[in-house]
Amino acid sequence: MSRWAPDARERLETAALELFVENGYEETTVAQIADRAGLNRATFFRHFADKREVLFGGEDVLTVIFADAIRSASPDATVGECLQVAFTAAGVVMTPQQRAKASQRVLVLVANAEVQERGLLKHARIARSINAALRERGVDEMTARLAAEVGMLAFTIAVERWMTSETAEPFTVLAASALNDLQMRAVKL
Amino acid sequence: MSRWAPDARERLETAALELFVENGYEETTVAQIADRAGLNRATFFRHFADKREVLFGGEDVLTVIFADAIRSASPDATVGECLQVAFTAAGVVMTPQQRAKASQRVLVLVANAEVQERGLLKHARIARSINAALRERGVDEMTARLAAEVGMLAFTIAVERWMTSETAEPFTVLAASALNDLQMRAVKL
Repeated sequence: MSRWAPDARERLETAALELFVENGYEETTVAQIADRAGLNRATFFRHFADKREVLFGGEDVLTVIFADAIRSASPDATVGECLQVAFTAAGVVMTPQQRAKASQRVLVLVANAEVQERGLLKHARIARSINAALRERGVDEMTARLAAEVGMLAFTIAVERWMTSETAEPFTVLAASALNDLQMRAVKL
Repeated sequence: MSRWAPDARERLETAALELFVENGYEETTVAQIADRAGLNRATFFRHFADKREVLFGGEDVLTVIFADAIRSASPDATVGECLQVAFTAAGVVMTPQQRAKASQRVLVLVANAEVQERGLLKHARIARSINAALRERGVDEMTARLAAEVGMLAFTIAVERWMTSETAEPFTVLAASALNDLQMRAVKL
């Protein structure tokens, strides 16, 4: 297949997850991932800086989706409503197909401290991006930081529920409900 | 000096910070750190698993201090009061001497992504420890997770203010005030 294949990124992600689950994260090389995807090593490194990055393409996409959604939310939207708008926008990428991938990824994450560390870095970047988008709307610094953390916690809880839910509820519904749950509790801290 | 020196851990931390600031984190070896501390490489590895760990001894201590304080807080203390008790307990280690070290450490962290990643992992561990201590008190899961995140944000903000404050206000005062600020904003999210 051509190394210019437009879906190269996704093929690399799928191949990597398969190999990590089959043979272990440590044992898998970038060359093997590229090979399984029908691409070469150089193509891998055009898309991802290192082996860990291939697991976090979704986070990079979400960083942009969340910030864009918050920026384009109605001018009179509250901070909580901005977060809800962001989660709704994320629904586009939180598909049933992604749900299957997310479950595979959890297995890899649980087993590797260095992968967890990269995940936390990505998580912190999404939080900073939410924070920055809220600040652009004139939200004060402390509120923006708090909202970014609470928003990320709601997102994390929603992803957990999404992966374990037997009724396959849409992500957006679960995210809205997780955020509501946290807002109720935040009042009583 | 004897490799059994009781203050070996602290000497290694001090030597490491000095060398990281002088020569850069990447360029500094464990052997150089041990040498500066008047100890050997083997002693370093009895105290720290790798070079990054020497920067996060304080976090390991705080993980225990926070959890112990929350566990021994008055049975009728609210979740917010438990966090305040934890911050008060942390005052013992947040000394002016530590404040100087913290400023040096920021310089190292800013320049190194891999050190930042380890910091986030330590941060996540403290949050889990707060969460677990609150759960032991019968706090529901969602509230405990929320309180752990809000508590860690208050702690982070307090550390920032502590390092930049020109009036050298005690850490415990700054932490109490950061938590109050966040609690006020949490109501309006």
